[in-house]
Amino acid sequence: MFSRGVIVAPASGVGGAVTLIRLSGEGSIACCDAVFEGLKPLRAVATHTIHYGVIKDKDRVIDDVLVAVFRAPHSYTGEDSVEISAHGSQYIVTEIIELLCRNGARLAEPGEFSARAFAAGRIDLSQAEAVADIIAADSKAAHTMAATQMRGGYSDELNTLRESLIEIVALLELELDFAEEDVVFADRSRLKSMLENAILVTDKLMHSFKTGNAIRNGVSVAIVGAPNVGKSTLLNRLIGDERAMVSEIAGTTRDTVEESIVIDGIRFRFIDTAGIHDTSDRLEKMGIERTLKAIERAQIIINLSEPNGAFETITLSEEQQEIRVINKSDTVEVQDTDTLYISAKHNIGIDDLLSALRNTVDTDSLYRGEAVVSNARHFEALRLSQHSLHAALQALQDCKSSELLAEELRQAILNLGEITGHITSDDILHSIFSKFCVGK
Amino acid sequence: MFSRGVIVAPASGVGGAVTLIRLSGEGSIACCDAVFEGLKPLRAVATHTIHYGVIKDKDRVIDDVLVAVFRAPHSYTGEDSVEISAHGSQYIVTEIIELLCRNGARLAEPGEFSARAFAAGRIDLSQAEAVADIIAADSKAAHTMAATQMRGGYSDELNTLRESLIEIVALLELELDFAEEDVVFADRSRLKSMLENAILVTDKLMHSFKTGNAIRNGVSVAIVGAPNVGKSTLLNRLIGDERAMVSEIAGTTRDTVEESIVIDGIRFRFIDTAGIHDTSDRLEKMGIERTLKAIERAQIIINLSEPNGAFETITLSEEQQEIRVINKSDTVEVQDTDTLYISAKHNIGIDDLLSALRNTVDTDSLYRGEAVVSNARHFEALRLSQHSLHAALQALQDCKSSELLAEELRQAILNLGEITGHITSDDILHSIFSKFCVGK
Repeated sequence: MFSRGVIVAPASGVGGAVTLIRLSGEGSIACCDAVFEGLKPLRAVATHTIHYGVIKDKDRVIDDVLVAVFRAPHSYTGEDSVEISAHGSQYIVTEIIELLCRNGARLAEPGEFSARAFAAGRIDLSQAEAVADIIAADSKAAHTMAATQMRGGYSDELNTLRESLIEIVALLELELDFAEEDVVFADRSRLKSMLENAILVTDKLMHSFKTGNAIRNGVSVAIVGAPNVGKSTLLNRLIGDERAMVSEIAGTTRDTVEESIVIDGIRFRFIDTAGIHDTSDRLEKMGIERTLKAIERAQIIINLSEPNGAFETITLSEEQQEIRVINKSDTVEVQDTDTLYISAKHNIGIDDLLSALRNTVDTDSLYRGEAVVSNARHFEALRLSQHSLHAALQALQDCKSSELLAEELRQAILNLGEITGHITSDDILHSIFSKFCVGK
Repeated sequence: MFSRGVIVAPASGVGGAVTLIRLSGEGSIACCDAVFEGLKPLRAVATHTIHYGVIKDKDRVIDDVLVAVFRAPHSYTGEDSVEISAHGSQYIVTEIIELLCRNGARLAEPGEFSARAFAAGRIDLSQAEAVADIIAADSKAAHTMAATQMRGGYSDELNTLRESLIEIVALLELELDFAEEDVVFADRSRLKSMLENAILVTDKLMHSFKTGNAIRNGVSVAIVGAPNVGKSTLLNRLIGDERAMVSEIAGTTRDTVEESIVIDGIRFRFIDTAGIHDTSDRLEKMGIERTLKAIERAQIIINLSEPNGAFETITLSEEQQEIRVINKSDTVEVQDTDTLYISAKHNIGIDDLLSALRNTVDTDSLYRGEAVVSNARHFEALRLSQHSLHAALQALQDCKSSELLAEELRQAILNLGEITGHITSDDILHSIFSKFCVGK
């Protein structure tokens, strides 16, 4: 996938007091030795030790540094690796990296360190993907989800499942070898219960994707209702209330283009429904159509009405949930326990609405430590795998040939293997790792 | 100056694959042990070693980390120190730092790590200041200057000078003790040559400030000349030519508000003289006045004329240099070797002009490894010190009392001591270190 050799890249962000420069590959210690002057040459030091010295370009000292040495296989990549702590100036970092490149290293491509860790069998593909997720995590829920997967997550479960399927396929293939003798090696009732169990496992993981996707990408929410029921007032109230709630995490960058709020670690994205009105303008009509499609795809519909008003009639899809809310109800008695009574203007009942939104995402299993699928690539592989498992079960029930059964199972194994990277094409690997940042 | 205890801060920029979190102070290793779970507790490991493990908040794993342990006095601060390499997410870094703060650490103030290194005598004040300079360095010249000072620079020279002055003061004070006996311990001719030498040393350093200041703050350049000689065309040509020249340093941020170019590691800032014209508007007049004052203070005046035109008559101050340039001279024969003949429009002679600008800053001594003063605080201390040295020399020549002589020398010693921090008030120290970034 990637070429071999010594790779180098800044591993930390530039701009602090210190920048970490990371090298990996056979020869990385010698490469660093060519420009490092310390008490001892790095080739003579033990693994996992740190050494003070200077980086020199011939006679010119570029920086005073600390250098950490990691010897194969005890490093992130499984290869000999070196980490240089230099002063955090863009000028120095560029000088050092260019100097190392003149001494045999080359600039790492995005994700190349993780790709090497994967190639060396240090982590599987889903763990490598979780490393990228953990770096991007900006909430407790997203962090917990990525951290669980980075430490194994559903990899073990999938591997166990995959191995049991491989075992059965082997038995079925044995039957094919002895086809003329019409023997049966694979116990059909055990096979049936095994397939049913496999479908359960994939079901559970696929089901978790609703939560995983909500945590990773946020939950889309549309506020619908007749004109003047207070849709904008409610949105402003929700956005306003949320400012204080996220301020505890310093420096969290937020997408300011989109109106979104984080409630207890989950991001909710609001679809702007303000622009929906009757118009004869062709371009405006197209815009409104796009908004209406977005509402159709929204995961949550807040159906907003006012006292003595009527709710909009909404046909919900299987994936959608409706929250019925009566606004301007500061003087109205609660009549329907399935409906929330609020006043957006006077900030009444807003906490209940926030709780209702929050409760649409079930994070109990996540915080119990169960793995949650958040990666669309994994979900798709699970879906294809389950499709083959269902077909295999059907073939079994219809007493179809071992050959057909084995073929379906091989397809299921293939799809499961794509998640952990047991079976993945170079193209797919390249596309996955290239989305990583440089230095990871 | 700062309070004691365990301090913690991110040391690298957040945003890369990895973020470095730094702790220092007595108890920092125990503080980290309270939240770290590895093969061994950190209190049991050797200095300068790295350990893999997890950071845990009770049962909740926050991140997989590498932890480096530095034992006093073998660390940057001279204290026990720990560096945690965590995944580079703002969320994780905030969680870890808050967790450490709940376990006895507190967030470091800007520059507090360096302040501790200074307090422990690991670096002197001018070296600590050079650490901040090296992080800010964005050119080879600025980097070389800061790196030379960080590794000692003129500290040794000043210390030698200071010590010899202290020795003389001691002898003069001895004379005062034996005043009634009218003895002379301090040899007056040796004293004279010593003072003359001290003045030479301070002269040389003060002289270097012109280069140092130019490298640190850039050289201000005004292009003056009659209307329509091509001032704007020349400026655009210079700015345009420079784009390619700086592109070799990736990610260098440039001040886009001000028109400036870097030639061979030196920044030249152009004063906008476009707005100078006759006007009766009071506000416009004030703006023009400010521009004229800026031109008065410009270090370089490019006096631009055209063939058969006349140069502006400029009264140069002692600090100013004039470069005479004839524009639109693509068809004109060179007549005056002190004048540059260019065509801004047709890109003729521009390289010569760039060289002329570059040559106004003498960096020979810098690249020979000589220390260059770039810090205005140091320059001021040198100036005050030299003032006292001159006064002492005068007192000596006028055969004034030992008491007067000693008093002047004590003042010179005091001022020299302020540069390296031998004698500096807490207020000054606080103001110096507070300009550092957090984590340094």
